[in-house]
Amino acid sequence: MKKDTAILLVYSKDRPGLVNRITGFIHRYGGNILYLDQHADHEAKDFFMRIEWELEKFTLTGHDIEAKALEEVIRPLEMQYQLYFSSSRPRMAVFVSRHAHCFADILHRYSTGEWQVDIPLVISNHEDMRKQAENYGISYFCLPVTRENKSEQEAAALSLLAEHEVEFIVLARYMQILSPGFVGHYPNRIINIHHSFLPAFPGSNPYRSAADRGVKIIGATSHYVTSDLDAGPIIEQGITRVSHRDTVEDMVRKGRDVERVVLAKAVYQHINRKILVLNNRTVVFE
Amino acid sequence: MKKDTAILLVYSKDRPGLVNRITGFIHRYGGNILYLDQHADHEAKDFFMRIEWELEKFTLTGHDIEAKALEEVIRPLEMQYQLYFSSSRPRMAVFVSRHAHCFADILHRYSTGEWQVDIPLVISNHEDMRKQAENYGISYFCLPVTRENKSEQEAAALSLLAEHEVEFIVLARYMQILSPGFVGHYPNRIINIHHSFLPAFPGSNPYRSAADRGVKIIGATSHYVTSDLDAGPIIEQGITRVSHRDTVEDMVRKGRDVERVVLAKAVYQHINRKILVLNNRTVVFE
Amino acid sequence: MKKDTAILLVYSKDRPGLVNRITGFIHRYGGNILYLDQHADHEAKDFFMRIEWELEKFTLTGHDIEAKALEEVIRPLEMQYQLYFSSSRPRMAVFVSRHAHCFADILHRYSTGEWQVDIPLVISNHEDMRKQAENYGISYFCLPVTRENKSEQEAAALSLLAEHEVEFIVLARYMQILSPGFVGHYPNRIINIHHSFLPAFPGSNPYRSAADRGVKIIGATSHYVTSDLDAGPIIEQGITRVSHRDTVEDMVRKGRDVERVVLAKAVYQHINRKILVLNNRTVVFE
Amino acid sequence: MKKDTAILLVYSKDRPGLVNRITGFIHRYGGNILYLDQHADHEAKDFFMRIEWELEKFTLTGHDIEAKALEEVIRPLEMQYQLYFSSSRPRMAVFVSRHAHCFADILHRYSTGEWQVDIPLVISNHEDMRKQAENYGISYFCLPVTRENKSEQEAAALSLLAEHEVEFIVLARYMQILSPGFVGHYPNRIINIHHSFLPAFPGSNPYRSAADRGVKIIGATSHYVTSDLDAGPIIEQGITRVSHRDTVEDMVRKGRDVERVVLAKAVYQHINRKILVLNNRTVVFE
Repeated sequence: MKKDTAILLVYSKDRPGLVNRITGFIHRYGGNILYLDQHADHEAKDFFMRIEWELEKFTLTGHDIEAKALEEVIRPLEMQYQLYFSSSRPRMAVFVSRHAHCFADILHRYSTGEWQVDIPLVISNHEDMRKQAENYGISYFCLPVTRENKSEQEAAALSLLAEHEVEFIVLARYMQILSPGFVGHYPNRIINIHHSFLPAFPGSNPYRSAADRGVKIIGATSHYVTSDLDAGPIIEQGITRVSHRDTVEDMVRKGRDVERVVLAKAVYQHINRKILVLNNRTVVFE
Repeated sequence: MKKDTAILLVYSKDRPGLVNRITGFIHRYGGNILYLDQHADHEAKDFFMRIEWELEKFTLTGHDIEAKALEEVIRPLEMQYQLYFSSSRPRMAVFVSRHAHCFADILHRYSTGEWQVDIPLVISNHEDMRKQAENYGISYFCLPVTRENKSEQEAAALSLLAEHEVEFIVLARYMQILSPGFVGHYPNRIINIHHSFLPAFPGSNPYRSAADRGVKIIGATSHYVTSDLDAGPIIEQGITRVSHRDTVEDMVRKGRDVERVVLAKAVYQHINRKILVLNNRTVVFE
Repeated sequence: MKKDTAILLVYSKDRPGLVNRITGFIHRYGGNILYLDQHADHEAKDFFMRIEWELEKFTLTGHDIEAKALEEVIRPLEMQYQLYFSSSRPRMAVFVSRHAHCFADILHRYSTGEWQVDIPLVISNHEDMRKQAENYGISYFCLPVTRENKSEQEAAALSLLAEHEVEFIVLARYMQILSPGFVGHYPNRIINIHHSFLPAFPGSNPYRSAADRGVKIIGATSHYVTSDLDAGPIIEQGITRVSHRDTVEDMVRKGRDVERVVLAKAVYQHINRKILVLNNRTVVFE
Repeated sequence: MKKDTAILLVYSKDRPGLVNRITGFIHRYGGNILYLDQHADHEAKDFFMRIEWELEKFTLTGHDIEAKALEEVIRPLEMQYQLYFSSSRPRMAVFVSRHAHCFADILHRYSTGEWQVDIPLVISNHEDMRKQAENYGISYFCLPVTRENKSEQEAAALSLLAEHEVEFIVLARYMQILSPGFVGHYPNRIINIHHSFLPAFPGSNPYRSAADRGVKIIGATSHYVTSDLDAGPIIEQGITRVSHRDTVEDMVRKGRDVERVVLAKAVYQHINRKILVLNNRTVVFE
């Protein structure tokens, strides 16, 4: 049985006493710390922390937790923060196109309970994956995108996401580029998988480019989507070796296994509130 | 310029408030925390912590640091502890036999300043490496070991180590088995490199065994030496791929590159006081 | 469009002229070689070869290919051989228990055409995976095994395998040990995935053993099943890093991703007739 | 004892019968093939082969080997070729600047006989490495390069290389860019190590760029030098993981271990005549 916990992520400029102040707050109200990770970037003077504590004997409850944290720690220390509760499962949407491998992998992890997440809906520009989604009881919406209807379809998607109370989005090899306007609604909450070892080979056809360049290792990169294509904060990367024997098709096949695992690791860390973002870089508390 | 710091490693049974108490101690005397890592094993209820802070504005100095830490934190919380200062470079001995690769690697890292360590002496059962050691100004002692003279030679080695104020020992492919008596003088302070992916292929000729078994990956393991052969706490492991094309000689050659890097990583973590040991397992705060 | 090819695997003791004789045979009848891989073990004097050629302009057809190969090359050179045709898809059975991850992965690769294979049936000792198998049009047979009924159930399985003309079997985390009698029916044709880096941690609960030993890397091993438990010829191995932070449950979760990929690589090589076995070791022509 | 062998590397457009013709030539004169590797790129219709055979019972000797090979195989089949003899050790020059790690590694492999190579001279734009080189009996020439004297110094280097009968050059973190004119003298015979995972981060300061981009994996790339900076045919690549905790200095330190091993693998393959180059890509017969 997993216990009920609270998770606090904070960022501030580094200065003495931060860890002591935050642990003092939790200790004062009887909280038992399960995980504590902190990172101080001494060059940039940035401070990051993730702290998770049990709520069982914690004497604050409900909205008081956030109110007291704000009053006693976050505001006095001028911190940016996110506060989550393990009892509240994040709600995730999946965007998919015609490549099945990442999508099938996500559904498998979802259905076996590997991920503590709810997936209320899938959005696609094709009908291909409808059956798989509906097999798992997930609503499927097909919104084909053309140059002409892109803004309307994105507006429709935003409505569906709001209606289903979606917190974050996973692009499981969704082959459309989202507009900056759309991306702006979900800052650091859209996770993409790019099928290359970024910053090498951004854009389309990276395996073809990799074969043409004759690289000996190919990779995949999961990152948060920003308005710059394939340039958002990197969450996770993975690689596999290739050789002169591998055709582009071989690279596509071998790359799929990397893409799936890299995307899954990124989503897992996001679900478990392990990621902080600053200046287009991530701090991932594994 | 590296700043002067203190490093405190602590272990105790887990209970609420530990991080807060320790950070409170440092904060109280004006210390600025540079690194804080903690690990709680919730199953076994064990708590591990490494904390490093700047001494520049710390109001305690010299022996007072340890005395106050003991009085205010370590004894009240029934902790085991180690306290180090960055100003005091650890003194390391290297034991070597006839395999040059790890030894040459150690000398290179030492001479280029990659490691903040002093190496006052090298002990070997052969003369082969004398010149290399002496080139770097390191004293070299040849103590050939036979079944008959083993205890005397170990006694001689212990004298030399004491005389040179050696804090820890690195076995750089030293092919002799140290007696339990010898090992007992340096608990968790003798680092060995074993040329297999332990617990597979302990003992001698692991590459031959790996070839015979037809494995597709070979490895190396650095561990603290205990009285059980190749069974001490593992610090670091690394691997490389092999195939049916690789002869035993190829594995030896490819394995050398793994051994050197795995041993170097372990020594680096040890020098930087990143390792805690409990129940034959390590906590390594990378 | 994939072209029709023949694949010849041969083994013999090494001696001069083997490649020339075999390529001469193919050349003589107008075959165009697509892939040629050979391996000579100079220590043991063993010779292995895989050669694949196009049948389009090959002037031998049907049974004449094998008859002439035997007459002109294989018998005179005292070779062991296997001859396959790309037009004939191998028929594979999957044995599964209650762990879904490898099984789901296999079904996905099967359904997307990544593997040129037919899967006529699944055999399990539980009902759990019936729906998934039947969704893909695969017959599902539940043969629960107890100490008492093991030999009858194995006989029933053998009947089903024969009836469905199964050529090889994949144990997708099938938790039963097959009897030597059963294994003897499918020599080097039963592929298992073991959830450790063999020869470390054979038998049950390898992740628990890995956590207890404090290893820094865990792995998975696919191998052909022999009558020695977890001691058959290794086809493929993979690894992932772990640390003191990983509980046994974390290792199980991280290990699943390794198991799936390692098993899939082994099956892919088997399907593509890339593997030769001698003296409990494999030659895998990647 | 290593046996005397001949090594023939050939390239031609692919067509039926090539392997048979070449193996026929060797067989006809009593040669025993030790290694045979071939690669056919079916898309581009390119054929590559490396074949190594024992000379002990080979009935051709001296110049007759090349003359007969040309007459009977290479010219009729319109092949490009290189012919080497294991009895003739390649002569290699090392160019070095002030980074010691790759250079020390090369000297170690050279001195222990890991590489079957002669190193008659080292050229550097600094005096720093003179002592190390001379310790191993290698001539050291310091040719400081400025914008003004670059062409003269390159001319001086070319003279020294010719005088020492150097066959290929290794740039062991040599920080100067060689002119196209210089490079033209050693096509596919200058091996560089670049401290990034190309094509990501070409040019200077790749570790700084990697840290700024927030990548989770860093790498190194060895390649043949062409007149395009960091864009020549890739021979080998390697990687290591990094995290938000790694500063640029940490990346430099971790990267050194990757650079050394990646460069050493490339040089090893080059020395053993395992590499063919076509269209800015390599075929490496491991």
